[in-house]
Amino acid sequence: MMKIAQTIDAIRAAREEYGLESVGLVPTMGYLHEGHLELVRRARKENDRVIVTIYVNPKQFGPSEDLSRYPRDMEHDLELLSNENVDTVFAPSDEAMYPADYQTTVIVTQVTQPLEGARRPTHFEGVTTVVTKLFNLCRPTRAYFGQKDAQQVAVLRQMVRDLNFNLEIVVCPTVREKDGLALSSRNKYLTAEQRAAAPALHQSLRAATVLWAQGERNSDTLRAAMLDILSAVPSARVDYVSAANPTTLQEYSDTVAAGQGILFSMAVFFGQTRLIDNVLLPPGAE
Amino acid sequence: MMKIAQTIDAIRAAREEYGLESVGLVPTMGYLHEGHLELVRRARKENDRVIVTIYVNPKQFGPSEDLSRYPRDMEHDLELLSNENVDTVFAPSDEAMYPADYQTTVIVTQVTQPLEGARRPTHFEGVTTVVTKLFNLCRPTRAYFGQKDAQQVAVLRQMVRDLNFNLEIVVCPTVREKDGLALSSRNKYLTAEQRAAAPALHQSLRAATVLWAQGERNSDTLRAAMLDILSAVPSARVDYVSAANPTTLQEYSDTVAAGQGILFSMAVFFGQTRLIDNVLLPPGAE
Repeated sequence: MMKIAQTIDAIRAAREEYGLESVGLVPTMGYLHEGHLELVRRARKENDRVIVTIYVNPKQFGPSEDLSRYPRDMEHDLELLSNENVDTVFAPSDEAMYPADYQTTVIVTQVTQPLEGARRPTHFEGVTTVVTKLFNLCRPTRAYFGQKDAQQVAVLRQMVRDLNFNLEIVVCPTVREKDGLALSSRNKYLTAEQRAAAPALHQSLRAATVLWAQGERNSDTLRAAMLDILSAVPSARVDYVSAANPTTLQEYSDTVAAGQGILFSMAVFFGQTRLIDNVLLPPGAE
Repeated sequence: MMKIAQTIDAIRAAREEYGLESVGLVPTMGYLHEGHLELVRRARKENDRVIVTIYVNPKQFGPSEDLSRYPRDMEHDLELLSNENVDTVFAPSDEAMYPADYQTTVIVTQVTQPLEGARRPTHFEGVTTVVTKLFNLCRPTRAYFGQKDAQQVAVLRQMVRDLNFNLEIVVCPTVREKDGLALSSRNKYLTAEQRAAAPALHQSLRAATVLWAQGERNSDTLRAAMLDILSAVPSARVDYVSAANPTTLQEYSDTVAAGQGILFSMAVFFGQTRLIDNVLLPPGAE
């Protein structure tokens, strides 16, 4: 029987019961799709207990972003998670997470600066702060995140190392539709026409990956290959395309040195809807 | 037999062994005195296991402060702690705590602003960051701090509540010399003449406490009473005297409302040596 904890006391009590059993944590903002469920299944396989959190964290949304219209469907989410044999769902209120005199922030200063961080200046401190709270409340053995949010993964890895959290970050591959579009709760905002055009993100990543596999190491050429494909889509407005160091996320300039991996990533607007996607090619993947 | 852990791996391994036993943590910067030892004794009495950390945290010293000359005597510290039946001492290097690409900070934004925070602008983010690391490494049931660092206690209480650390902050009374001087590792910097004058801090706190007990609620009058005594000491240079709300640390102005507690505190220079002291009178203590 899946427990639903909505208060700090309730999640603490649930965690207390698990004692020294291994705990897998899957933090989400709800409106769950197959990508989330793959994280849950992996957590289920690797741990004695699985806790999924559903919380649309206001601190990681900018003032002009989609907090108020972010899609929610708690009933459906709970049904999906119950089918995956989750032990506890933590779905707190804003008041429980950020009471009136709340005043603490966790800040990672460098890997947060480029890419998403440059466009969404307070996004990652919202993420690192809420994830610190979830780590402290759930004390997981392992925490599961999707590769789709590549910079989030890099930031959280850095935070876990720097603050000495006693847990392992497990990263799961991006789950895609048949036509290559990465699953995202925000895909539901797309019109039929935009939806038809959206696989261009994945196509441009594949083009860059093919060039990389063929030995292309000029980062300008690699970025141009992605941009060419995206620019050909009338309904797409490119926010950025990037070919960066996968650990520091610093943009490569000129030729990528031998033995380096690469993170291809991008953000593209379709109307008001902003989609991101990436592919990570670690060193030795060539 | 007391364990001495000097690396992240070693303290993790020590903590792992304690499993679900209760753990008392006493974070210190070493050069231990009776004040520290009282924290250790209380921790010993209340927990199955006691971990003491000795680490002069560079991040909580300002650029013009006394980091390089801060007193150290590891051998003597270990002897004292062994006599108190401590289970593990964690004494890491700077490289272990802050490796080359370190980039994460924990910031409490409001209660850090007045008093010590106003004079030492990066001090408390150094404290909250290192204490977060120690909490994650040692996962204490209870963590022990001295009332002498009153603002530190208020800041850490706020951080523990905001970030949902699963532990209790235990505050122990300030330990004093017979003449009232609060014990501090920095007292050793004092010349004989300065040492003879230093009990003025405690005397001024007693004067304010007596006035408070007699019903005085004008905060200007209470501050003036402290300042009068300190100003009469030729070798003392007052940095601040304060009569503040004990939770927010906001300075009281005019009359303190009925049912409020009060924190009297001060910082005073003797030459280059800066001493602090305080007394906390909770609501209902009148």
